[in-house]
Amino acid sequence: MSIFRDDLFSPAQDTPLYQQLYSHLQAAILSGELKGGLKLPSTRVLAGELGVSRNTILNAYEQLAAEGYLESVEGSGTFVARVLPDLLFTTPGRKVPRQPRRTGPDQPRFSDHARLQLAAPLMAALRPSGNELPRPFRFGMPAVDAFPYQLWSRLVVRQARRLPASALTYQDPAGYGPLREAIAAHVTVSRRVHCTPEQIVIVSGSQGALDLASRMLINPGDPVWLEDPGYLSARGAFLGAGAHIVPVPIDEEGLVVEAGIARAPQARLVYITPSHQFPLGVTMSLARRLALLDWARRAGATILEDDYDSEYRFAGRPLAALQGLDDAGRVIYIGTFSKVLFPALRIGYLILPPPLVDAFLTVRSLIDIHAPILEQAALADFMVEGHFTRHLRRMRTLYAGRRAVLLEAVRELPLEIDSPEAGMYCIGWLPDGMDDVSVVRQAAAQGLDLTPVSRFSMEPLARKGLVLGYAAYSVQQIQDAVRRLAAALRSV
Amino acid sequence: MSIFRDDLFSPAQDTPLYQQLYSHLQAAILSGELKGGLKLPSTRVLAGELGVSRNTILNAYEQLAAEGYLESVEGSGTFVARVLPDLLFTTPGRKVPRQPRRTGPDQPRFSDHARLQLAAPLMAALRPSGNELPRPFRFGMPAVDAFPYQLWSRLVVRQARRLPASALTYQDPAGYGPLREAIAAHVTVSRRVHCTPEQIVIVSGSQGALDLASRMLINPGDPVWLEDPGYLSARGAFLGAGAHIVPVPIDEEGLVVEAGIARAPQARLVYITPSHQFPLGVTMSLARRLALLDWARRAGATILEDDYDSEYRFAGRPLAALQGLDDAGRVIYIGTFSKVLFPALRIGYLILPPPLVDAFLTVRSLIDIHAPILEQAALADFMVEGHFTRHLRRMRTLYAGRRAVLLEAVRELPLEIDSPEAGMYCIGWLPDGMDDVSVVRQAAAQGLDLTPVSRFSMEPLARKGLVLGYAAYSVQQIQDAVRRLAAALRSV
Repeated sequence: MSIFRDDLFSPAQDTPLYQQLYSHLQAAILSGELKGGLKLPSTRVLAGELGVSRNTILNAYEQLAAEGYLESVEGSGTFVARVLPDLLFTTPGRKVPRQPRRTGPDQPRFSDHARLQLAAPLMAALRPSGNELPRPFRFGMPAVDAFPYQLWSRLVVRQARRLPASALTYQDPAGYGPLREAIAAHVTVSRRVHCTPEQIVIVSGSQGALDLASRMLINPGDPVWLEDPGYLSARGAFLGAGAHIVPVPIDEEGLVVEAGIARAPQARLVYITPSHQFPLGVTMSLARRLALLDWARRAGATILEDDYDSEYRFAGRPLAALQGLDDAGRVIYIGTFSKVLFPALRIGYLILPPPLVDAFLTVRSLIDIHAPILEQAALADFMVEGHFTRHLRRMRTLYAGRRAVLLEAVRELPLEIDSPEAGMYCIGWLPDGMDDVSVVRQAAAQGLDLTPVSRFSMEPLARKGLVLGYAAYSVQQIQDAVRRLAAALRSV
Repeated sequence: MSIFRDDLFSPAQDTPLYQQLYSHLQAAILSGELKGGLKLPSTRVLAGELGVSRNTILNAYEQLAAEGYLESVEGSGTFVARVLPDLLFTTPGRKVPRQPRRTGPDQPRFSDHARLQLAAPLMAALRPSGNELPRPFRFGMPAVDAFPYQLWSRLVVRQARRLPASALTYQDPAGYGPLREAIAAHVTVSRRVHCTPEQIVIVSGSQGALDLASRMLINPGDPVWLEDPGYLSARGAFLGAGAHIVPVPIDEEGLVVEAGIARAPQARLVYITPSHQFPLGVTMSLARRLALLDWARRAGATILEDDYDSEYRFAGRPLAALQGLDDAGRVIYIGTFSKVLFPALRIGYLILPPPLVDAFLTVRSLIDIHAPILEQAALADFMVEGHFTRHLRRMRTLYAGRRAVLLEAVRELPLEIDSPEAGMYCIGWLPDGMDDVSVVRQAAAQGLDLTPVSRFSMEPLARKGLVLGYAAYSVQQIQDAVRRLAAALRSV
């Protein structure tokens, strides 16, 4: 039979011979090459022809028979099943499973919400690809090479050996208990957040928190205030829930609460980064914080406070979190370990007003059940044993030094630097009339990875500027990058 | 009526007004805000109150009536149905809204989709609490004490030491490359799935896959076929996207495709467990598989194949996955390591038709960016170095033995056992007239953790039965538990 070609088997493949034969025959039957009722060669004959063991043929035939492709008739042999062709040939010209067509009118259309997210501007496009370290002045990256990884992996190892069998089964959707206790202790002291461990839900970084909160609180069409310029991945999460995004401007006191009230007094949700506004770096004033809380209480709105890098403050004491000022249960606090430890850890948390906890946990269990446990346990140890505080202190010193080097190096450049003594990046405002996109392009030719502030804005900005990340780069790298930036600015 | 608030409609939305009203009423009925038997305002009166056309109201009422949420009584009006289509209220004592009762008047209300999920029956309620090992006959739990944890932690340790600094930054949202290669090799050989590593997306267990697929493909109101009885967490995920759930019965050949076509010929999505139906254990016949694929191609529907425990087959060879039969790019395959390794690992995967990959990754990056990397890397080693196959083989022997012990032990019991030579549980059908809920209650008094099959059904089942998980329990535990079950059955 012509389908039993000599080249049927690929000895190079890992796939067992009987499986190769199975697939080959299945394809031939489905495509109609082997017609229903056709008698197949006996296992002995075919084994001889193909030069394989009889068991190989037997295994393939048996499997095909079990699945209904072949029929064995006692004493007369093995036949291609007749039932099959009837079913299959309802679609003329059906050919066998291979790669699906690349496109086609009958490909699944995506949901409306997915399409909103697909059309959203993405932070992902601003992240390095994973197998490489970031280049200056990519922002949002901690100095992963300064992370005490040996110590960390010792803690991981210890927990990997210590966790009992019960820790391998499904866990509490709220997260690992001792980690929630450690976080509660940390934010109470260092961020003046008011909470108990029971209010904390461990999720996958701050993105997991934004996604969960969006789904819990936003109906399609609900107005949501967003800082403008602001964090793209928050916008993406809210769009996914169908939010009507209301851009609210930022001034030197932070979010212009009055502007938000004027635009959407009945907003359902407000997303804000009060400690260190992303990307402008402003700290929200106390007056504005109180105005926001007051409006939220009256409007029944929820405030999502994203405290993504507040641990890095180089002078003075960090301002208390907005959450600590809230006595009406209107604030959901979001924290993450992506900046203070490392992004690939994927551990962040929500601190919820108590009445929201149960409902959030129920829905969360339908998203991913719970976060993986091993690194939660290692992180709890890292915090409880004091490594976390020590690491933060070291990083504060390191980043403050790098910031100083950057500020010194850019003094000769035609940039106006806006750099609060906090965070992991600063803003360099361009001279009037200079085009930020051209600068970014010229800088890319110099090997630099720059982002214009306008990338994060919804309404036109009064000034053009660049986000200059410094935390992840050595003194040498920063000085070198500033020289290249100077060249790029000259060439525009 | 207070639920017909002025702000019910969002005119900004694309969603037609009648659909907004439909969703609003559906949520209110499911949450119990609108009680069974309540008379609704006439279409004329409500149209006047809400300031919309009478047709809008009529359309919403008609759709809700068609789906069984409302009942029209000729000449006297429209009423909330006393028996809901979803049979949410059939479990005695169950109060639907997990809507937190503590919420005060000014607490944030939850989104409609969240409320649908809050009202859904939950698997979570069926899971042990995390700090304890499961008790017989809890199903869905592998024998975590038989997992080679020392070996596993050695691999974790090695990777914890070996991963370069670049592995600490943001990673590919598709997952760790070598793990995707190992999975592609595994499913190609053992499940006859056709795929390349580029089609694989690593997510948080099968729940992460269900959640992502729901969001990508389902618009509110889209009909989705669900196996009945079937997996509750799939139902929950689809409800979260606003799906209109269409229960499709199971017979000895698996999903009754004709019944699905009769009920919802234009369904958008089908959720199915063809290798080993949850919870009935049926393997879907080839004829049904082909009929389903044929319909899906014609209807432009997507099939979500959840292959959650197909690795455990004790006799014969595992049937090939449905995905391998699909030549039209209609099947999304879902795999998980929760059953073959351990649940707390939280690693599962989607295998997508190539045209869907980019869009899924974009939306995924807005949910949680990517899965944590360390255990992905350890798992890749576990697979590549052959430990995975060895572990599977050991577990197959172990579970086959435990199954045999269970089947032997229950022979004296008045149960009819339905136990395909596969999986991690079997079904024990009760004698006619014996109440499954009473049995479960009596068994609980004996320290047993039993689940009635009816817990997973939407429409009334012809027979009452129990799900008997055996994989996680020793011979001793099983024999002891059967004695207690016998006592419980006697006392009913």
